[in-house]
This record gives sequence, C-alpha cells and structure tokens, in this order.
Amino acid sequence: MKLLRWGQIGQEKPAMLDAQGIARDLSGLVPDIAGPVLSDTGLAMLRALDPDTLPEVPKDARLGVCVGGTGKVICIGLNYSDHAAETGAKVPPEPITFMKATSALCGPNDPIIIPAGSTKTDWEVELAIIIGTTARYVQQADAFGHIAGYTIGNDVSERDWQAHRSGQWTKGKSSDNFGPVGPWLVTRDEVPDPQNLRLWLSVNGERMQDGTTATMVYGVGFLVSYLSQFFTLHPGDIIMTGTPPGVGLGMTPPRYLSSGDVVELGIDGLGQQRQDVIADPRG
Amino acid sequence: MKLLRWGQIGQEKPAMLDAQGIARDLSGLVPDIAGPVLSDTGLAMLRALDPDTLPEVPKDARLGVCVGGTGKVICIGLNYSDHAAETGAKVPPEPITFMKATSALCGPNDPIIIPAGSTKTDWEVELAIIIGTTARYVQQADAFGHIAGYTIGNDVSERDWQAHRSGQWTKGKSSDNFGPVGPWLVTRDEVPDPQNLRLWLSVNGERMQDGTTATMVYGVGFLVSYLSQFFTLHPGDIIMTGTPPGVGLGMTPPRYLSSGDVVELGIDGLGQQRQDVIADPRG
Repeated sequence: MKLLRWGQIGQEKPAMLDAQGIARDLSGLVPDIAGPVLSDTGLAMLRALDPDTLPEVPKDARLGVCVGGTGKVICIGLNYSDHAAETGAKVPPEPITFMKATSALCGPNDPIIIPAGSTKTDWEVELAIIIGTTARYVQQADAFGHIAGYTIGNDVSERDWQAHRSGQWTKGKSSDNFGPVGPWLVTRDEVPDPQNLRLWLSVNGERMQDGTTATMVYGVGFLVSYLSQFFTLHPGDIIMTGTPPGVGLGMTPPRYLSSGDVVELGIDGLGQQRQDVIADPRG
Repeated sequence: MKLLRWGQIGQEKPAMLDAQGIARDLSGLVPDIAGPVLSDTGLAMLRALDPDTLPEVPKDARLGVCVGGTGKVICIGLNYSDHAAETGAKVPPEPITFMKATSALCGPNDPIIIPAGSTKTDWEVELAIIIGTTARYVQQADAFGHIAGYTIGNDVSERDWQAHRSGQWTKGKSSDNFGPVGPWLVTRDEVPDPQNLRLWLSVNGERMQDGTTATMVYGVGFLVSYLSQFFTLHPGDIIMTGTPPGVGLGMTPPRYLSSGDVVELGIDGLGQQRQDVIADPRG
C-alpha cells in the first residue's frame, strides 16, 4: 500500500494510490497519514478499503511530506562505507546520530531553497524509515514491528555550515526545504528486504549517486533498536538512514548546487522525487 | 503576564496567573498557549482579560511545558565562559548549536528519568527563549520583536552518550524527560533585561549552580538573529541559551544524578522547577 499527502503547504490531505497508480483521497475517512493511522491496525483498516470508491486527487496536485505529525527527524551519518571513504572519514564504531529540524521538511517535488550566504549546498539520497508505533528499548528482532513503512529522503546539506561553523551538524542540515520526503509511504509489507534496494540521484540528468542499501553499515532493524535505547520513537518520526557515495563534497573538485539546477532521485519500489533548485527569495 | 499549561500529559490546557499568583483557566478562550496566541496581537488579547472572571485551576494540578506546538528545541553549547572553562573547552568563535528532541520535553516538576544504562545523567539550568512569531534572516535590532517570552529549561544531559558514543550530542540530550520547561512563559515586557538574571540549581538542597545571564557569551538578541540565518524559527520554538558553571561534569570528581535525588532550579522572575530523579521503569 502506498500512502501520500496532497494539497497546499500546511493543509495536506491524506490519500492512497489505487492499483492504477491514481491517488485517491482519504480525507473523509482519516484525519491524516499520522498517529494511530500508522499502526498495524490503522494500516489494515486502510488496506480493507476499495480505492475505486474514493474520489480521485487532481492529477496536478502538489504532494506534501508523505507522513504527518512528525516530531523528530533523526539522521544517520556516514552509514555507507564507500560514502565514508569519499568524505575522508572512517566508518564510525556505532551510528553517528544527528537531528534535522522538522521545519526543514517539504514535499518530494518542492524546490530546494539555497539559503542566503550558502555556497556549498549538497544532495544526499537516503532510504527513510517511518515509525508506526511507539518504540522504546526495542530489541532488533522486534524492530520491524514498529515500522509503518519506507520512503525517499533527500538529506540536503550545507557543507560549510555543517563542518566549519563551530561544531555540531545542525546548522548545515536544517535550512527550510532541506528535507524533501516522499512521494509515498510504502508500507513495510511491500518492502520485504530493505537492505537490497537500489538508490540513485541525478543533477541536470547526470547520474551522481548510484548505490544500494546492501552496502549500508548499520541496517534498518539495528537502527530502530539502537535509537530506541536513547529516546522514544513515536509514530510519524522519520529516520534518514544515510547516503551512498556520490555527494558533491566527495568530488574532485567538489561540486555544489546552483539556482536553476534540477535534482532527481529515486529508490527501487519507492518512487521518485524531482526538485528545482532556487535561491531563497527572502534572502 | 505569566502563561502556563496544566493537566494530564498530552492533554494540557492553557492558563494564566492572576495578580495573586493563582492559575486561571483559558481553555474556553484560546485553544493553547501556541501558534498565533504567542504573537504580540494574541498576547495583547490575553492581557486585556480580567483574570478574576476565569475559572481557577485546581491547586494540585500538574503543570505541563508552558508552551505548545513546539517544532524544535535549539540548544546553545558552552555559552558561558566560566562553564566552558569547567568542561575544559574554549569559548567557541560562534554559537555551538544542537537540537534536543521535542519528545524529551516535559513539565517543570515532572520527574527526571535516568535512562537504562546511563551512569552520567547531569543537570543544566538555562534561560529559555520562546519564539512568538516566524523569524527568518532577522537583524539583531529586530530580534526581540520575535520573542514571546522567557522561561526556565533544564537541559538534562547524559555526558557519556553526549561525548563518547560516536560524535554529535543528540544521543546525550534527547532522552525522555530530559527537557523540563516551565513553570510559566513570562512575556518579554516583564523581562526588560534578559542579560541580568540570576539563575541557580540545587541537588538535594545543595547549591550546585549559581550564575547570572550577565556572563552569557552570545546574548538573547544575537542568538535569535544568528539562528534565523540558518533556518526559520516558528512560534513555539524554544531556544535553550546555555548553562552557567556548576554542572556535575565539571566537579572533581564528577558528580551525577541518582534515583532518589531531588533537583530544584530557578531564575529571577521566572519561577522555579522541582524534579524527582527516578530510574526508567521501562528500562
């Protein structure tokens, strides 16, 4: 099952894809793709619906973040051994964890906004986990039961602000629209092996990243269990699991995004995103 | 004006203090101490009320976080020169910025929960800024206009997880109940000089921290302006401005919290907090 949210920013409505790939509106049935709707019970209720009985979403509708009620976005750093190598870092002995502000989240096809003063805005295609039920002190064997599903995340990053503005990566990870997430939440039953997904990213049609989650250092089940030892994961929380090689920082010379660029990215079975890169009109 | 939220966890109702310091319920008038209510217009509307006409809140009511709708908790590290010295660090050339998960927020008198496996849970009294209106690329001269008010925060920290679990401070700052915030949002008109407030913290009646915001390195107006260059600040966002000397990590030998300890803390004009320290019953 593929769930999504559509409509104007801040007023997104829930929807699901039908067998033909047409989005069908759920707003008469559930308030949002959020909270209890993300539990196995909530998802089973949606799965029992006949999508053909639901109103079609306009074909040109804007897509929002595919999940609502997100309390935190937890990101994992250097989680592909070959990406660690390209940035000159070693694979960490346990997952590097940082937060992206929820105010950075945006729809999968919303523009990437280069913030004022930025010269090193970079891309990172990532497999994103969406939490379905509250998880605290969870064992790895039980971790998948707390996952609602998966989607694509672009962990947009300002490399100078991340590395050279007095420690901690927050400043380089949290600008507005630095977190496109979607297009759909694909429920976990449709992703039997999240460690065998091809993921890719192109800039202006040129392939930059082309990897597989098979080379992820710390896998999906481990990450959910690991993070739940530090704090409670809640329904709607998003875990960005790290990026494969091919980011702009790792190139010789480094290459960063400019206004007018077009970024496209995708993961097998999870769809695609497309972002126009723009300068911040407020900056 | 002093605004607060009371009631069961997740079901808090808005209230204000009257001239006698009695909490008066606002739930018939505004949905929450959140969003547009935090703007100058919203606060002026509340200020025009006669609190004596409002129902009294039960005297034994639990206090929640004094603001709702918090999208992010931004913390500033090493922002008092004498605290930097006690931790063996230099004052950073610009503010160190990290995030505390919003899921760590709790009421000012809720227990501090020592997470399973923690041996180094520490305290940090801090002046907390509560954002009142959206702020992006704000100049320092305009920063105060975006502040709804101030309150007390305890930036509870697990020092081993913060420093020795593969980089980035997130893991040591975000455990459940690691963010008591309150008791009240004191509107900024009642805090004419936020850089001249005494702040203190005691453990089991023994004074551990006793400082003043006069020794803060990066002041309130600078911080709001600075952070707004990196991302948008939204109403209800909380900025924890750093802690003065006297944390457990800085003692010889270091001293950390144990189950049964009682932590009390306060800031001139902003009230007090009191927390029982407990082991995590789920751990």
